[in-house]
This record gives sequence, C-alpha cells and structure tokens, in this order.
Amino acid sequence: MSVTLADIEAAAGRLAGHAVTTPLIESLALNERLGARVLIKPETLQRVGAFKFRGAYNRLSQLSEAERRRGVVAFSSGNHAQGVALAAKLLGVPALIVMPSDAPKVKLDATRGYGAEIRLFDRLTEDRAAIAAEVAAERGATVVPSYDDPHIIAGQGTLGLELARQADALGASLDLVISPLGGGGLMSGVSTAIRALSPATQFVGVEPAGYDDTLQSLRAGRRITLKPSARTLCDALESPAPGELTFPILQRNLADVAVVDDAEVAEALRYAFSALKLVVEPGGAAGLAALLAGKVAAAGKTVGLVLSGGNVDPDLFARVIRNEPLA
Amino acid sequence: MSVTLADIEAAAGRLAGHAVTTPLIESLALNERLGARVLIKPETLQRVGAFKFRGAYNRLSQLSEAERRRGVVAFSSGNHAQGVALAAKLLGVPALIVMPSDAPKVKLDATRGYGAEIRLFDRLTEDRAAIAAEVAAERGATVVPSYDDPHIIAGQGTLGLELARQADALGASLDLVISPLGGGGLMSGVSTAIRALSPATQFVGVEPAGYDDTLQSLRAGRRITLKPSARTLCDALESPAPGELTFPILQRNLADVAVVDDAEVAEALRYAFSALKLVVEPGGAAGLAALLAGKVAAAGKTVGLVLSGGNVDPDLFARVIRNEPLA
Repeated sequence: MSVTLADIEAAAGRLAGHAVTTPLIESLALNERLGARVLIKPETLQRVGAFKFRGAYNRLSQLSEAERRRGVVAFSSGNHAQGVALAAKLLGVPALIVMPSDAPKVKLDATRGYGAEIRLFDRLTEDRAAIAAEVAAERGATVVPSYDDPHIIAGQGTLGLELARQADALGASLDLVISPLGGGGLMSGVSTAIRALSPATQFVGVEPAGYDDTLQSLRAGRRITLKPSARTLCDALESPAPGELTFPILQRNLADVAVVDDAEVAEALRYAFSALKLVVEPGGAAGLAALLAGKVAAAGKTVGLVLSGGNVDPDLFARVIRNEPLA
Repeated sequence: MSVTLADIEAAAGRLAGHAVTTPLIESLALNERLGARVLIKPETLQRVGAFKFRGAYNRLSQLSEAERRRGVVAFSSGNHAQGVALAAKLLGVPALIVMPSDAPKVKLDATRGYGAEIRLFDRLTEDRAAIAAEVAAERGATVVPSYDDPHIIAGQGTLGLELARQADALGASLDLVISPLGGGGLMSGVSTAIRALSPATQFVGVEPAGYDDTLQSLRAGRRITLKPSARTLCDALESPAPGELTFPILQRNLADVAVVDDAEVAEALRYAFSALKLVVEPGGAAGLAALLAGKVAAAGKTVGLVLSGGNVDPDLFARVIRNEPLA
C-alpha cells in the first residue's frame, strides 16, 4: 500500500479551509551565508505549530460515522498529539492521547487545551503502543499512528505539494529539499509529492545524533530498530525505527541522510531567532542545523527547507538563546 | 509636500528585488481568540528584521552620484540605523550612524555588521540631531531622516501597498489596519497607500505609554513635543513628537490611537512566541498588544496587523518569555 500524488491531492482537498497554507519565505541573509537560494517552508505557522495537523486531519476526516463516535487513540511525544487532538475537536471525535510524562510542557498543555483526554506513561518502563492498543480495544477506538499510515503520509505530503507549487510560482526549480526525519511520514509524503511534480529534485533527511535509525537502515538495506541510550534536544525526532510503509518510500526517494548533534541544533535555534525571527523547536530545526553546519552541500543550489515545528518550552528556548547550559 | 499612491508605487519599483515581499499570514488561534479575521504582516521577515529597510533604500537609491560619494548620516536607536546601513552597503555609499549608547546590542552589532561607521551619543546629555547635522556639514553628507521625509514615507508605504494587494488576493476587505506608531513614517505611508486602494479602511496607531505624543497632538490639533520621564520596552517607538510631514497625514488618516504599557507589550511578545511562533521586538508588537488587551475593538472585523520589527536582544526576550522581572 503506497501513496501517490493523487492521494496527496485528495488530502489537499480535505484540508482546504482547515489547514494553513504556510507561506514560502526567503532570507537574503541566509542565502548569502550559504551561497544558495533557500526557500523556507515555515510549518511552525501551521495549526498546532507543526505539520502534524495535516496528516491527522486527513486521517480523521475519513473515519466513518460509527468510527467517529467510538473515538480515536494516538501516542505521541507531542506534535502528533496536538494534531490529532485539534483534528478530533474540529470533527467532534473523542480523543485519548498517550504521551510520555516527560514530554515538553508546552505540548502537554496544548494537547489538553484542545480537549483531548491524556494518559501519561513512563518512557523507560512502559510501552506506549501497548497502552494505546489496550485502550483502543476497550473502547473500540481507532488508533491513529503518527507516521506509518497511508492517510497520515498523504496528509503530510500536502506540505510538499504546496512547496512545489510555491517554488514554481517563483520560477524556482528545486534542486534539493531538506527536512527533519523522525519516523519518515513527513519525508515520505513530501518526497512523493515533489518527485511527481519535479523529478530531478533530490531529498535529504536530517536525523539527530543517537537516533539515526533511518541512516542505519538505509545502509543495512532493512529496517533497523535502535535502542537509544541517551535523549536528544529533538524530542520530536526520537523514533527508534523507520516505518514499514515509510521505509520503502525513503529507500526509493532519499539521496542522503545527515546527522546533527545537540550543539548544532541549538545553533540553528539561535540563528532562526536572530536572523530569521522565527521560533523553531529543536526537532523542527534539524534541517537548518545541517545546512548551517555544512553537513549538506547547498552552494549554488535552490533548496527547499522544511522547518517542521515550533513547539518549544519557553525555558528551554530562553536557555538556548542565552547560550546557557542545556542540562 | 505630501506623498501619493504614485510615489509609493514608484518606491515599490525601486525596491523590487531588493526588499522582501513579506507574506500575509493568518493564525486561526488568534482569529478565534479575537472573534476577528487578522491578516498579519510580519515585517520581522524584512531585510534587517524591520520595515525600515524599505524607506532607507527608497531614499538612498535616489541620491545623485555626487551625493553617494559624500555619503549619508542618520540617527536612530536601531532599526532605521540598520536600514540605512544595509541600503548604503548595497548602493556603495559610505554611512555614519549616530546611535544612543544604550541602544539594544543586537541593533548596534547589526548596524556595525553592515559596515557603517557608528558614533555613540548619550541619550540624556547630547543632541543626536545636532551631532548628525555637524557631521553632515563637515563631510557634505546627506542626512537621512528616520521618518520626516517624503521618500522615507513612500518607502514605508510599500508595506501598505503589499498588504492591500495581498488582502485583495484573499478576497478579504480590510476594515481596519493596526500598526505601531513612533514618528509616524510607517503609518503615514501605509495609510496613504491603503486609503487610495480601499477608501473604507480605518487606521489605528498604537503608541507606548509615556510616548503618546501623536495621541496628544491629535487631541490638541497641533504637534506636541513630550519630555519623556521614563523609558519604555518599545525602544523603537521613543519618538517625542510626530513629524512635520507625518502629522498632517496622520490627522487626516487616523481613526484612533491606542496606548499600551510594558506589561501588555510583554504579553504580546509571549503570545507571538507561543501561539504565532514569531520573534517580535517590543515596539513591533505594540499593535498586537493593543488587540490582545482589548484596547482596539476587532470583533467581527477583518484586521490588517503590522508586526513592524523583530530585533530584540536575546537576554530581554528570554526574560520576557520566562516571565522574569524586566529590570
């Protein structure tokens, strides 16, 4: 079961009037620094502050009446949680979200604010998928995966559709698209949409150090599941393995994967703050971090850069822009 | 000597390819909170992080060859300084900027970064206009005023031209445009452009408490010069009087002036950070502050909101988003 341009166009139709068509913006300072033309897709400006609303709304709007009544269950460290919670609220669907007890407060509060029921779990001792499956069985609720689902992938793909069309409207031809990489739902959808419209475009995903499961899987030629030993600043990208559906798409579409560390991500947050005037969360800034650190060669190219989310706790953001220890 | 739509259109021609056409963005969360449709013009994304580049480039690009060689002088607390410095760099014109020694570090550093010579003055004991006039006389340099100049006003007006056209492209009819108000250059240009294209639109300027010189002048029917006794968070809006050129335009075009205090401005910065994911400087957020504080009635209206700049010191921004005392 793969995802096609037609699926993504259908998703765009469902999202029209509900999701934000985020603008494409350009910083002449960033262009000058990189010797490239960077077209920034600030998905920070999306509803819930991240691209995740796209996939969630596309998935939930296709539930049957009976499914809507029985509700949905999702597990997520935060952005998918908010996306599902808001889509559920808009569509009148009860939602229970299973979230790690150490998720960023801003994400917990926002998810609660959209009216979802929240069940916390301990990241180290409990299995979130098992909890979600159990609740779903009890209630007859539908589990909404955060990436390994064709409707989720198609919904995230609408970002790529917009990016391709907006670049085209500027007369720009995308040599390269760079995006943060977690479970691969975003990159699968975006690369599927853009490859269909612009076959020469290359795609580079960016993973945080310690969570380079896609890079390792691509090298091995099969899905590798990591046992991460440490956290990363990029809470949104802590997936241990690419998805069953997303991995073959990533195998087909990715030219490369770059890996960035916390210091590079923090530097990208500071750059986004001071030069771009954008609030970006660590995971959302992984692509920018790779560009600024010189881990993706951009000189002379037209680059589409996805800033995938902006949900960052004020205290962490304050520490980063003040260059305080991130403890 | 007034400013017309034709002047503003000519300025837009000069700025094409040099200034950023900033997008018009919409936050469904903000719309819901205010019961209005708010079309946000984030001039934070402009070159130098503020609208001031528009006027400066329009002014400097019209200097004669001889004038370019002799250079320019400007005085400014920071955003006009950066606008003139960058425009001068792009046009190969030597620039000296007279800045207060207590200007935000981010603005001092950026102005220096664009290659301008900087002369610091003491805000309490020295007269910046006199210093600038003296330097201009010594060098035969052209003084570039920060607002009281028809080319500066026309340049800032290009923001209004874009806003009117972008709203029109969305099928939206602007009931109201809200903008921060300092010396009045921005509001004069913006209101001139938009009134010409959309005669029913009303305009509300927002001043910081202690610097409500335009409000007092409008009430008195003549220009009042304040002797401010305290600072405001809004360093960009510390003008003591409306300009000779701007005041009659503001008299004609403004429906009202709202006044916001530091606490309301800080709240707007936090809101822009958490809900809009935008970095806005205090002066740039005055209009948003007035809306959030209920000082401008917006319910049921389509509102154009100018966020005029985003140059804020990281330490101040960190204190604001952490709700720490603002010293």
